[in-house]
Amino acid sequence: TQSKLPGTGTNIFSVMSKLAEEHKAINLSQGFPDYECDPKLIEYVADAMKQGFNQYAPMTGLPVLRELISEKMNSLYGAEYHPETEVTITAGGTQGIFTALNAYINAGDEVIIFEPAYDCYAPTIKMLGGLVKPYQLAPPNYEIDWEMVKKLFSANTKMIILNSPQNPTGCVLSEKDIKALIKLTKNTDIMILSDEVYEHIIFDGKKHQSVALYPELRERSFIVASFGKLLHTTGWKLGYCLAPEPLMKEFRKVHQFNVFSVNTPMQVGIAKYLKDPQTYLGLSAFFQQKRDLFRSLMAETKFKLLPCNGSYFQCVSYEHLSDEKDVAMAERLIKEYGVASIPVSAFYIRNTDHHVLRFCFAKKQETLEKAVERLVKL
Amino acid sequence: TQSKLPGTGTNIFSVMSKLAEEHKAINLSQGFPDYECDPKLIEYVADAMKQGFNQYAPMTGLPVLRELISEKMNSLYGAEYHPETEVTITAGGTQGIFTALNAYINAGDEVIIFEPAYDCYAPTIKMLGGLVKPYQLAPPNYEIDWEMVKKLFSANTKMIILNSPQNPTGCVLSEKDIKALIKLTKNTDIMILSDEVYEHIIFDGKKHQSVALYPELRERSFIVASFGKLLHTTGWKLGYCLAPEPLMKEFRKVHQFNVFSVNTPMQVGIAKYLKDPQTYLGLSAFFQQKRDLFRSLMAETKFKLLPCNGSYFQCVSYEHLSDEKDVAMAERLIKEYGVASIPVSAFYIRNTDHHVLRFCFAKKQETLEKAVERLVKL
Ligand SMILES: CSCCC(=O)C(=O)O
Ligand SMILES: CSCCC(=O)C(=O)O
Repeated sequence: TQSKLPGTGTNIFSVMSKLAEEHKAINLSQGFPDYECDPKLIEYVADAMKQGFNQYAPMTGLPVLRELISEKMNSLYGAEYHPETEVTITAGGTQGIFTALNAYINAGDEVIIFEPAYDCYAPTIKMLGGLVKPYQLAPPNYEIDWEMVKKLFSANTKMIILNSPQNPTGCVLSEKDIKALIKLTKNTDIMILSDEVYEHIIFDGKKHQSVALYPELRERSFIVASFGKLLHTTGWKLGYCLAPEPLMKEFRKVHQFNVFSVNTPMQVGIAKYLKDPQTYLGLSAFFQQKRDLFRSLMAETKFKLLPCNGSYFQCVSYEHLSDEKDVAMAERLIKEYGVASIPVSAFYIRNTDHHVLRFCFAKKQETLEKAVERLVKL
Repeated sequence: TQSKLPGTGTNIFSVMSKLAEEHKAINLSQGFPDYECDPKLIEYVADAMKQGFNQYAPMTGLPVLRELISEKMNSLYGAEYHPETEVTITAGGTQGIFTALNAYINAGDEVIIFEPAYDCYAPTIKMLGGLVKPYQLAPPNYEIDWEMVKKLFSANTKMIILNSPQNPTGCVLSEKDIKALIKLTKNTDIMILSDEVYEHIIFDGKKHQSVALYPELRERSFIVASFGKLLHTTGWKLGYCLAPEPLMKEFRKVHQFNVFSVNTPMQVGIAKYLKDPQTYLGLSAFFQQKRDLFRSLMAETKFKLLPCNGSYFQCVSYEHLSDEKDVAMAERLIKEYGVASIPVSAFYIRNTDHHVLRFCFAKKQETLEKAVERLVKL
């Protein structure tokens, strides 16, 4: 039998995290916090288990959690998502993306993605027989020229994947971007898959441009979100997906046969925790402080800092220093300097190396300080 | 866009559980325990969270948990599964099945299943463009005539799905069955997907015929297993998948883009708990006692008990009582008698109604007693 994913090796996050471990490097590669989540949240999950919430949750997710999400979407974006029919709890953001693509992508369908792009989009599309149409963004600003995006459109364009704030670049879409997108896709039935897992990590007072804000887009969009990013618990693997009822109906058909349902006690605990929106409304400020710290520390190194408007990733360029391939550079930083990062070429399908590395700053102050102490030596 | 799963409505478990709730019926429909799991297990998971195991697990699962599973397979079945390359932790048995099918089923591939069959097999195969070739088993004994199975073979036969102990019938494959299967598939490269989620629930001293016992099958088989069934925690959504390295390599490619990784603190807690094999080696005795109780109680009703050799389901026939459709009968039992069951016709693709209902006996003694008190009235 032929492989459905012939080109897939071990993903860059696993490779770099493993190499970091082997060399006891400080791991700023894979995106996850190295500090503790709120003990109250842990207590709520432990309580849920002790109270006996250990059997199947409803296929679509715990009603109270779906209601909270629905209320949040309403209060933040003025968007109505009916908890019964338009919100589904998933086993993490990735499962939401995989399931949405599985529900809608057929052989020959074209999907436009913006590179550098999170690494699960392209292989999932290809696995389904779809065609990936990458729009390549470039440092330092990774801006989108929507007239150029238009050139990627064809009669087979089925979907556009958005990701704002973007992993790995930390770029965010502006209102102007979204308006251009709306204009471009008006009178088409091109769907949007909007990966908004960093929605609550956006800096300098910028407003997150959720597709939920725009009824013209919302009606043909999936939104994918992540509790792991929201609550500093990437290992709990919980998230959710939003879509208008007709789309969500198809999503749930696949979801039901993929995972059937999602961890019950964690849903119960998270629902209790999220009753207080203060628990997440402070997230941007929390991470902005980390970003500012990391940037001021990194200013002492030879790297050039690229803009960072959201997410918990900071990209840096070393183009002016060397023409070493970014994978080699990342490996050398681990082996010789003891700091792990992600080479951004891994987020492009075709060999595209802008000599940019991604660092995760969702780390304790001392971790960031120690890492930069080492990077200064370069 | 056309739906990829046009025929899929809400699944029978959700429908019956919901109807049971509405009518405050005793729920013996969906398969899950109504008693508590071991508090020690809960403590271990809570400890793991408090100790900070809240970020991404490795994509393939926690090493210590994979090693324990590998040791178990060796000690129970004399089968070598390398923990590094042949064991993957999944977000439940269903995700294992979905992922294995996604890795291998292509348009036009034929998959043989034995009906009544668990409800996720057929739609997943169809979604992938595959063709379902059902072999219909019939009460009371649901036996397989392997010569008849052979008639389903074609040049396009890609896979056979086994499920022993079988949901919903409680039937188990014998050594003779497996030998016949081996003979039939010798010199073919037909794959086996063996859904063994009830492997530790098998009665009267019968030996579970894992495909792991048979090297000729093992080399082209996926085995799917479930911690939910093992530990009375169906809502935790953890399981695992086993396969020889070349197959597992393809499985993991899909797994990585489907869920990436699986709940970390639950993996840590389960690994600690399973260090003592006594925690699960007593499972068959535990459920045999429940089966015996339920059967002796049900003997007082008008239903005919079918054999039950494994799983936590008891099927009963009412063919001699009425020719009411089983869905109607199940609904009537909920509404008029306050007991929920599953109509077994739901496990056949084509209308096939043997007038059989499935009851889950993974329940407290008093639940079973109360339910049968009501059923006796019929
Ligand atoms: C799912 S592992 C990768 C985590 C992550 O989002 C990242 O590092 O980009
Ligand atoms: C995944 S919900 C169904 C649970 C179950 O295994 C069953 O009731 O058959």
